[in-house]
Amino acid sequence: MMDVMEAARVAEEAGRHIIHLEVGQPSSAAPEHARAVLAETMKNDPLGYTVALGIPALRARIAQLYGEWYDIDLDPNRVVVTPGSSGGFVLAFTAFFDAGDRLVTGRPGYPSYRQIMKALDIAPVEIPAAPENGYQLVPDDLKGLDYQGLMMASPANPTGTMLTRDELGAMIDTCQGDGATFLSDEIYHGIEYERRAVSALEISDDVCVINSFSKYFSMTGWRIGWLVVPEGQVRQVERLAQNLFICPSHAAQVAALAAMDATEELNANLAVYAKNRQILLDGLPGAGFDRIAPPDGAFYVYADVSHITGDSRAFAAEILDKAGVAVTPGLDFDPDRGHGTLRFSYAASTADIEEGLVRLKRFMQARG
Amino acid sequence: MMDVMEAARVAEEAGRHIIHLEVGQPSSAAPEHARAVLAETMKNDPLGYTVALGIPALRARIAQLYGEWYDIDLDPNRVVVTPGSSGGFVLAFTAFFDAGDRLVTGRPGYPSYRQIMKALDIAPVEIPAAPENGYQLVPDDLKGLDYQGLMMASPANPTGTMLTRDELGAMIDTCQGDGATFLSDEIYHGIEYERRAVSALEISDDVCVINSFSKYFSMTGWRIGWLVVPEGQVRQVERLAQNLFICPSHAAQVAALAAMDATEELNANLAVYAKNRQILLDGLPGAGFDRIAPPDGAFYVYADVSHITGDSRAFAAEILDKAGVAVTPGLDFDPDRGHGTLRFSYAASTADIEEGLVRLKRFMQARG
Repeated sequence: MMDVMEAARVAEEAGRHIIHLEVGQPSSAAPEHARAVLAETMKNDPLGYTVALGIPALRARIAQLYGEWYDIDLDPNRVVVTPGSSGGFVLAFTAFFDAGDRLVTGRPGYPSYRQIMKALDIAPVEIPAAPENGYQLVPDDLKGLDYQGLMMASPANPTGTMLTRDELGAMIDTCQGDGATFLSDEIYHGIEYERRAVSALEISDDVCVINSFSKYFSMTGWRIGWLVVPEGQVRQVERLAQNLFICPSHAAQVAALAAMDATEELNANLAVYAKNRQILLDGLPGAGFDRIAPPDGAFYVYADVSHITGDSRAFAAEILDKAGVAVTPGLDFDPDRGHGTLRFSYAASTADIEEGLVRLKRFMQARG
Repeated sequence: MMDVMEAARVAEEAGRHIIHLEVGQPSSAAPEHARAVLAETMKNDPLGYTVALGIPALRARIAQLYGEWYDIDLDPNRVVVTPGSSGGFVLAFTAFFDAGDRLVTGRPGYPSYRQIMKALDIAPVEIPAAPENGYQLVPDDLKGLDYQGLMMASPANPTGTMLTRDELGAMIDTCQGDGATFLSDEIYHGIEYERRAVSALEISDDVCVINSFSKYFSMTGWRIGWLVVPEGQVRQVERLAQNLFICPSHAAQVAALAAMDATEELNANLAVYAKNRQILLDGLPGAGFDRIAPPDGAFYVYADVSHITGDSRAFAAEILDKAGVAVTPGLDFDPDRGHGTLRFSYAASTADIEEGLVRLKRFMQARG
C-alpha cells in the first residue's frame, strides 16, 4: 500500500495533481464538537494517565452505543478502550492466544493482520474466500482445519462486503463448535448503506469484538478504539493493557466521548460516502471495471481486473502515471489472487470521486 | 502499584484527604504552548494518519535535542516516534529479539518490563542489583550469563540513581562483547539535579534508546515517545511500527513538537521537583527513612525500610490508613528484596510534599 502512496507523493512533489482513491481513511476531521470539547478540557485538565481500561464515562457511552445500534444491553465493564484498533488487535491476540496458536482469516483481508500475528508469534492461517461468497469465508472453508481462532470483518476491507446475521451466526457456531475463539473486526460498523451491519455480540457473548473511532467517527490519527471481551476475560485484558499501553491517549478519549454525540456531522460524512459510492457504482462499469464485490459497507469497491491485467501492481502504477489516479493493487490484500484485483476507496470528496472517474474512463478508453 | 492507587481512591471517595507520593507522573499538564498549538492546528488540519515513523519535523526536532543535550550529531532518520515509551518497548523488543531470547534487566526495575517481555514471548532475566551500586547492574553481574539483550535505565525507576559515563560505558562494552543488544531506557532524561544524565548514544551508535515525552515534557496521558535505533534497523522498525500501530497519535505529535520549545515552563516544573527533592532529602531521615539510594534524577526516592518492616505492602497500607499518605511498596519493583523497600515520588506539588512529610513524621513517631 505504501508503494502507491509513496509514488503518489513523489508525483505530487513534482507538481502533478493526483486523485486519491487509495486512502483508507476519511478526509474529514474528527467532529467539530469533539475538537471543541478537547480544546476546552485541555485548558484545565492535566490529561495525565487514565485507568488502563479507559475513562469510565467513555466505556459507559460505548456500551450505550450497543443499545442504540444493535439493541444490545451491554455491560460497560466488558468494554476496553484501546490505542486504535491496532492496539486492540495486539491486546486481543495476546490475551486470547498463545505462541504457536493458529488464527484463521480470509483472503483478501487487512494486510496488517498477519504482520501483527507474526510479531506476536501467532501463526496466520489465510484461507482464500470465494468471490461468489462476497470474498467472505463460509463454514465449509473451515472443514478439517486445525485452528484456535477465527477473525472475520463485516463490512470487510478491501471489499466492503457484509455478512448477514445468518452467515455470521453460522461462522460463530462453526468456530465455537471447533473450540476456537471468534474475533469480530467491526471497525467499519456505522458505515453501511442498504442494511445495518450485524455485530457478533448480537449472536454470542463469547466473542471478542474489535472496533475503532477511526472510520465512522472520523478519528484515524487519534489512535483510539475499543474491544468488547467476555466478562471472564476483563481482568486479564486489563493487566495486559496496563503493561502494554499504560492507557489509551487521554486526549483521544476525551475527544472520542464527545464525538459519539456528534451524530449530525457524522451522518453528513456518511451522506458523502453514500453519494460517492453511487457515483462509482454507476460509473465504474462504463470505465471497464464491472466485476465488483457487493460494496455493502465501508468506503471501498474491490474490482476483479484479471481480464485486464495479470499484474495489479504494474497496472496501479500505470493508472497513477497515465491517469493521475492512485488506487490500491489487490496484492496488498491477497498475495495470490490480488494480482488480478484493485481496490478503489471513496473516502475522498465527491468532487475528487467525480474527477477520478472521468480520468479512469479516459485512461481506459485510450488504453483500448 | 494499582493496589495502593485503588486503596487511595477508595479512601478519597470516602471523604479522606490523601497525599499522593505514589504517582509516577508529573502533576503538571503538557506545556501551555503545546496545548495552544494543538488547539490551533485542530481547527484546520484533519489530523489523519501520519507516516509510521512520525512527522518528519518532529523527528528532526528530536534529533536536534541530542545536539542540545548531549552534543551529539544525530541523523533524524534514526528517530522513530512511538505511542509512548510503552509502544517503544513493544517495538524495540519485537524488532531486536526473537521468541525465547533472554533479556536482562536489573532488580529493582519498572515492573512492566517483564510483563511486556512475557506478552511477546521474550524471557525476562532479572538480576538483583546491589544497593552499594545504587541498585544498578555492574559488569560482574553479567558474568557467565546467557543473554541476547540488556536493558538499563539511568535515571532509574524506582531509585532515581544514575550511571556515570564510565559505568554506562563499561556495561555497553560488556554487553556488546557478549554479542548482546544494549537497550537504554532514558525516559527520565532531562529530570536531573546535580549532573546531566549520559545517553547511551554518547558511547555507541549500536544501541537502542527508548525515550518519552511523558516525564520531562510532562505529557504522560498523551502517550508519545521515541526510539533511536541503529541506521541498519530503521526499515525493519518502520515495517513493524506500520503494522503494530499504523502511526503514533497525530495530535500528540503536534503537541510534542511544540512542547520541545517550551523550555521556560519545563524548567519551572524542574525547579519544583528540585525543591521537593531537597525537602524529602532533608526531612525523610528525621522521619526514620534514612537508608536511601542517591536520587540523582527522576522524581523518586527509594528507601530501604527492612529495619522497620518485612512486609512493604502491609506497611504501605498502614501508612495510607493511618497517615493518609500513599506510597508505593518496593515489591512492585523487586519481588524479592522489595519486601523491605518503599518508593516515595516527589512529582506532586511542593505543598503536598511538605504535608506528606509532616504526616509521615507524625505517623512514625506515633508508631514508635
